[in-house]
Amino acid sequence: MHKITHISMETDVLAENRHLAEHNHEKLQGAGIRSVDVMGTTGAGKTALIIKLSKILMDRGFRVAAIAGDVTGQDDYDRFQAGGVRAFNLNTGKECHLDAHLLDHALYDIDLTGIDFLFVENVGNLVCPADFPLGTDVRLVVISVTEGDDMVRKHPMIFQGADLAVINKMDLASYMEIDVERVKADYRKLSGGRDLHPVSVRTGEGLEALVDRLLD
Amino acid sequence: MHKITHISMETDVLAENRHLAEHNHEKLQGAGIRSVDVMGTTGAGKTALIIKLSKILMDRGFRVAAIAGDVTGQDDYDRFQAGGVRAFNLNTGKECHLDAHLLDHALYDIDLTGIDFLFVENVGNLVCPADFPLGTDVRLVVISVTEGDDMVRKHPMIFQGADLAVINKMDLASYMEIDVERVKADYRKLSGGRDLHPVSVRTGEGLEALVDRLLD
Repeated sequence: MHKITHISMETDVLAENRHLAEHNHEKLQGAGIRSVDVMGTTGAGKTALIIKLSKILMDRGFRVAAIAGDVTGQDDYDRFQAGGVRAFNLNTGKECHLDAHLLDHALYDIDLTGIDFLFVENVGNLVCPADFPLGTDVRLVVISVTEGDDMVRKHPMIFQGADLAVINKMDLASYMEIDVERVKADYRKLSGGRDLHPVSVRTGEGLEALVDRLLD
Repeated sequence: MHKITHISMETDVLAENRHLAEHNHEKLQGAGIRSVDVMGTTGAGKTALIIKLSKILMDRGFRVAAIAGDVTGQDDYDRFQAGGVRAFNLNTGKECHLDAHLLDHALYDIDLTGIDFLFVENVGNLVCPADFPLGTDVRLVVISVTEGDDMVRKHPMIFQGADLAVINKMDLASYMEIDVERVKADYRKLSGGRDLHPVSVRTGEGLEALVDRLLD
């Protein structure tokens, strides 16, 4: 019985989310802000990646900000601030993903003037953020070599819904029992021929090229 | 509007889950099966850990089986089979966590005779499984050193609801920028004085002792 209720509920929630995502997109575009939803599991390196990408963007003259989405606490917010990135904290309370409604509220609280580029770091989760686009220009999914080579096969929905997919911690690949080529092949097949973008936040590999793609 | 509906829905779902979890617990206990719900994020090493623990248990004379819970596919099921562990595949379809209802269905399909010890590998997720106890004897949460040292602080609910918490990939700790003592201190504080159990699936560190604790 609860299954049926759940399905009809879900349809309403997803339709409402799409509507609010369009609203967010208009608002961000109207303010001249390029925005990226950064999705990925806990520990993929989303926060560290955003800090490094922000530095490259700032060196190129962009004014950057980041929204730190987490269930609770402000660890990522603190890391952004310590890393020199203007940041805003956004707690979901209990939900395992951000949604367009939460971002809508955040965008009311944030002074959008003086921002050219906004990262929205989603809650660490490779499943549910797939269903809830936020209205950003780009949806980026980040995985890392420490997560095993079955990530794309096990989480097709988030990769299908993403515009760009990155594999991080490439400097650790030789220490891990992972066949990176297999992950790349899985993603190529799922995405209709697109390439997984390899990066290492630690060594800097692939980061300038990733910024180019985000600005493209 | 959808918020209010969502909250009342959630209450119903969680109450229903608790009821079915009790039912599962009675069923498993009645069949003489000790059971463990293995929770943790994508890439924490849950599957590999279960295979190693199963081998130790089988060497001690236990008949072991594992349920591979995933959104889609049967990668973990295949790994269990290849690792010599009797396995059953359980796909959620779309949900980011197992629940007692799904396990209830699985337990109807499985021949429970000839099983002494059952691992239930949850979907990779450090948030939602916390809300959905399955009715196992033990709820075990697995994190790894590659996930950063803020895991416990960022996901208090899953650690509060777990009976036992393990930190895996200890052999990689020296390659990572992680303060393991900080994670241990966070868990000790949150759990009222309990210790995070360090293991390395690769080197075998801590695994025999973990089996002792699971049998305790």
